[in-house]
Amino acid sequence: MIIYLNGSFLEHTDATISPSDRGFLFGDGVYEVTRVIRGNFFMEEMHMGRLREGLDGLKINVHNSILKSIPDISRELLKKNDLLGGEASVYLQITRGAAWPRTHVFPEPEAEPTIFLSATAFKPHTTLHETGVDAIKIPDVRWTRCNLKTVNLLPNTLAKQQAKEAGVDSAVMVRDGVITESPNANIFCVKKGELYTFPATNYILNGITRRVVLEIAHTLSIPVHLIPVREDDLYDLDELFFSGTTTDIQPVNQVDGRAIGTGHPGPIVRQIQKAFTERLHS
Amino acid sequence: MIIYLNGSFLEHTDATISPSDRGFLFGDGVYEVTRVIRGNFFMEEMHMGRLREGLDGLKINVHNSILKSIPDISRELLKKNDLLGGEASVYLQITRGAAWPRTHVFPEPEAEPTIFLSATAFKPHTTLHETGVDAIKIPDVRWTRCNLKTVNLLPNTLAKQQAKEAGVDSAVMVRDGVITESPNANIFCVKKGELYTFPATNYILNGITRRVVLEIAHTLSIPVHLIPVREDDLYDLDELFFSGTTTDIQPVNQVDGRAIGTGHPGPIVRQIQKAFTERLHS
Repeated sequence: MIIYLNGSFLEHTDATISPSDRGFLFGDGVYEVTRVIRGNFFMEEMHMGRLREGLDGLKINVHNSILKSIPDISRELLKKNDLLGGEASVYLQITRGAAWPRTHVFPEPEAEPTIFLSATAFKPHTTLHETGVDAIKIPDVRWTRCNLKTVNLLPNTLAKQQAKEAGVDSAVMVRDGVITESPNANIFCVKKGELYTFPATNYILNGITRRVVLEIAHTLSIPVHLIPVREDDLYDLDELFFSGTTTDIQPVNQVDGRAIGTGHPGPIVRQIQKAFTERLHS
Repeated sequence: MIIYLNGSFLEHTDATISPSDRGFLFGDGVYEVTRVIRGNFFMEEMHMGRLREGLDGLKINVHNSILKSIPDISRELLKKNDLLGGEASVYLQITRGAAWPRTHVFPEPEAEPTIFLSATAFKPHTTLHETGVDAIKIPDVRWTRCNLKTVNLLPNTLAKQQAKEAGVDSAVMVRDGVITESPNANIFCVKKGELYTFPATNYILNGITRRVVLEIAHTLSIPVHLIPVREDDLYDLDELFFSGTTTDIQPVNQVDGRAIGTGHPGPIVRQIQKAFTERLHS
């Protein structure tokens, strides 16, 4: 597999960074994962926009010419890995760079940001989209700047691992008595034909797929409420589903072993899945 | 500078890790910083104990023989860097290791953990200990497992940078209306000759220096209350000080430009500084 690192394309086994990289020492960086269908990037501009927001949020200065070159680098990377034909995903991470000595404050002079991209073949979770998944409910222990897509991802990895060890696919995270997110996807709730999802504040990542779902709901005239759903109301919902770049639209059948609605994917998630798949492949 | 990485001592400019290291991709690791005075490690066993707690917390499995070898590696590193004479600090980081493809869940089979140590000469902040420092008050935006000393350190780096840009040395972080920690030190409050500090829960890191201060307070018969101090009571305090491995005991004169007590280091912090310095050099 060929990856891109700081100006070079090279075998991923040859790619190295310094242990003084602030990505390694502090998790001081941001990332994006973008879906690619036959060489076409899905919602690429929106991913690039969020990347810029994240860099601004962390005050990581990347020269505009470098940012502008990322789409070309991504395409070249796909080409080099022979991934222009089917489905793929591109991972992009930018950190504040390597600096010594280790200090919490930003290095002076500024370090050269580390820019890392990889591309892999992607196989959609078609079976899970069809059958739906089960989840556990866990406390949302993340920091309160979840709107930034940073690589400070320990709470997310620990939550996914906890779900796996519980024999389910994912988790529904709860903060202050309301449902926020899954460890790697947004959450939508359905009650009486209407959608409810956590508003785009600092308590969730404003997912690109989430934004597409909101557009689809508008098109389909499904009413949307950008208000959090209470943990106590979870089992009164008719439907629940996850949305995310690699998750797509994934119905949730059970949480902690108890059925949501009928315990099977409902009509609203099916409508949205259909519209989403069309849009993804358009 | 010679560093240690996964079994080898090498020039830090030659040291490389893979971009697929989970330390880089997720901040999936823990660290410790230990003070060394003329080759003697201060509170080494306590640091090693906390390291083990952190590894357990993240379920990173490091073979016991490797953990047991860390003190020897640390001493060898000091020797190789000619740091056995004066003051030094040793930085140790262990991550879950490099694994491909990138997945939130822990890699299967387990990856070989990445073990990184560096040692540098250390100059105590003697002037700041004498004069005291100023700080700003900021929201504590960290996750709620602050008891784990992980490299998910973005909130800490951003807070330190914010303090620097405000022209002060550090910050007093506030969560839910009470004072928790500074971005890289614990906080002690003094009122009427008695000490108050946040209890060792999941909302703070239980600092090694904090534990030493509690022992010193006991020896000096200074009453200690392990209860949080309210933000609203900040300016009614007589004294405020930070404690930490590289901070030592640092009086805080002002927060947001307003004096704490007299605005100068008070008698309690001076007593504790004196006892701490004796202990550090004993």
